[in-house]
Amino acid sequence: MGKSRLEAFSDGVIAIIITIMVLELKVPHGVTVDALLPLGPVLLSYVLSFVYVGIYWNNHHHLLHAVQGVGGGVLWANLHLLFWLSLIPFVTGWMGENHFATLPVAAYGFILFMCSIAYMLLVRFLTRHQRENRALAEAIGSDGKGRLSTVLYAAGVALAFVHPWLGFAVYIGVALLWFIPDRRIEKRLA
Amino acid sequence: MGKSRLEAFSDGVIAIIITIMVLELKVPHGVTVDALLPLGPVLLSYVLSFVYVGIYWNNHHHLLHAVQGVGGGVLWANLHLLFWLSLIPFVTGWMGENHFATLPVAAYGFILFMCSIAYMLLVRFLTRHQRENRALAEAIGSDGKGRLSTVLYAAGVALAFVHPWLGFAVYIGVALLWFIPDRRIEKRLA
Amino acid sequence: MGKSRLEAFSDGVIAIIITIMVLELKVPHGVTVDALLPLGPVLLSYVLSFVYVGIYWNNHHHLLHAVQGVGGGVLWANLHLLFWLSLIPFVTGWMGENHFATLPVAAYGFILFMCSIAYMLLVRFLTRHQRENRALAEAIGSDGKGRLSTVLYAAGVALAFVHPWLGFAVYIGVALLWFIPDRRIEKRLA
Amino acid sequence: MGKSRLEAFSDGVIAIIITIMVLELKVPHGVTVDALLPLGPVLLSYVLSFVYVGIYWNNHHHLLHAVQGVGGGVLWANLHLLFWLSLIPFVTGWMGENHFATLPVAAYGFILFMCSIAYMLLVRFLTRHQRENRALAEAIGSDGKGRLSTVLYAAGVALAFVHPWLGFAVYIGVALLWFIPDRRIEKRLA
Repeated sequence: MGKSRLEAFSDGVIAIIITIMVLELKVPHGVTVDALLPLGPVLLSYVLSFVYVGIYWNNHHHLLHAVQGVGGGVLWANLHLLFWLSLIPFVTGWMGENHFATLPVAAYGFILFMCSIAYMLLVRFLTRHQRENRALAEAIGSDGKGRLSTVLYAAGVALAFVHPWLGFAVYIGVALLWFIPDRRIEKRLA
Repeated sequence: MGKSRLEAFSDGVIAIIITIMVLELKVPHGVTVDALLPLGPVLLSYVLSFVYVGIYWNNHHHLLHAVQGVGGGVLWANLHLLFWLSLIPFVTGWMGENHFATLPVAAYGFILFMCSIAYMLLVRFLTRHQRENRALAEAIGSDGKGRLSTVLYAAGVALAFVHPWLGFAVYIGVALLWFIPDRRIEKRLA
Repeated sequence: MGKSRLEAFSDGVIAIIITIMVLELKVPHGVTVDALLPLGPVLLSYVLSFVYVGIYWNNHHHLLHAVQGVGGGVLWANLHLLFWLSLIPFVTGWMGENHFATLPVAAYGFILFMCSIAYMLLVRFLTRHQRENRALAEAIGSDGKGRLSTVLYAAGVALAFVHPWLGFAVYIGVALLWFIPDRRIEKRLA
Repeated sequence: MGKSRLEAFSDGVIAIIITIMVLELKVPHGVTVDALLPLGPVLLSYVLSFVYVGIYWNNHHHLLHAVQGVGGGVLWANLHLLFWLSLIPFVTGWMGENHFATLPVAAYGFILFMCSIAYMLLVRFLTRHQRENRALAEAIGSDGKGRLSTVLYAAGVALAFVHPWLGFAVYIGVALLWFIPDRRIEKRLA
């Protein structure tokens, strides 16, 4: 079964997720700089989530590029990833509007943690499914970066209860780690 | 006439439907666990609807994969299905925000019932249209699972008036029934 | 220049237009039949607009199917059509929430009128652009149905000031007229 | 690496951006002409932004049409452009709802300025990446129009502090400048 419609549907959902987050940036009633200031944390939260959803789109793009066909289980593993990604706008808004309070920052990290678990499951379904994808499996190797991120998200959730900015700093760190798409796949394919 | 634009448009609409449902998960004003608790039923309702829209996307994917061309009537049968699917976010929000009260649960089942009718109509239009689709018609066979679901949705609506959770339990049961995409089509095509 | 990205972008915009209209169906706070009743006109308004946007998507689909390439002017003629279509959710909500009052019904007809003008302009740009599209021009012929619709929309706007339901009846009539996609194009292409 | 998924994702995001702006046109409660009048500035603001997003889509379309492959950096340069474009609905709503007050008009120009910078960065990434794109680089030439626009946006921001309508007039002027897609690319490709 072809992968093009899976890509198209995922692109659609991810495009909507990345765009509806901006709706949390509610138009202020005033026209002064003071009216804009409360939006600062919301914007900061939006920027981080935009980068994260962008990272997932980039990695999803690279991952499916290396795959030749998808089976039934993959469709559900992909929907499972999209489900957790779809909760990013909610935790983004909650974290931003509450100026990075403890629980929202921890919840944000929890959703990132679940997204990374869902991504790992998708990789596993794809690599198990077909012969051709074994090359991909080798290319991904032990996937240390993915596992490290999952551990770091969990650490970020825990650290948020020490101080929210510690958790937030961890999320920024992981985002920087993933900013560059997986060169291993690109190299192996080239 | 090609089917690619029909797939693209359907993917777009279904992607938006599955994503805008999350807008009903409104950002709470508090930052405590208590502030999150009222969102429990809304989230539960969202999860079920996400799975249902995912099931429809999967089945739609498999169905059109087995089809080679579409006629004018199919465009309308497809829009008719999308119309009923587009009402899922409304009943999802109504059911979740009212903590699974009787009428919202019954209304939810009614929309699922109409979606299943619309899906059966789409199958009928596709199988009647062309020679090539007769293979699909044979592959689908008597479509017992589709008919069973339709009957179960109607039963769920009725049971919701006995107790809402009975209706809800039926909807979960049907979702589990459909969780695995139609192996019959996959087998026949392979 | 290829037409596939124009189709993809138009599909995306039309898919969003047809789907965000449902957001006007706001989740009622009550759980009784009485709580649903005020939504009746909003739903009626939504159904008509869903059919109209569906008609435009179908005709747009058929039109571009018969075209082989698009020039720069076509991109703008297409965006112009999408602009007027994007105002349909606004007038749909205005008409539905105000239970088909005079001015909203007239405004609804005005937007349909502008959409039909924009569609005619798009047809003109497409037929002028290339040799291959002359076949399309002949297929469309004098486009009596398009011109008739434009006149009827204008009549509907005027009749809305006599009684809103007269205007609304005209809009339903034109929708029925267009319900079946343009057989002339299908025949000529076959 | 292919460019088709990049185009599809960009089309999706831009389609959503151009469409969700209409949500700022909130359905008025009254049914008189007086109820519509306050929407005038919001509609004017929407029209300008629709044209701008349309310009970006057109230019993006032409740009990627002239490109044969994209590298990892391009994905991020493209996301960076989409980020700034995604803020257009926010400043559109802020400018329209506040009847073109000074700060919102300046903010609108600032976002346009950042979009133009992001577009130039994308062009640079694309032209540096591959041999084939050198033809594109030559076709674009010194890109005087792009640089001029960037300067004019900055001037518009400054002029908004003299009088908002001066800034707004500059934005309209630049839109007219870009209304026609880049003939240079079309010519070189033909």
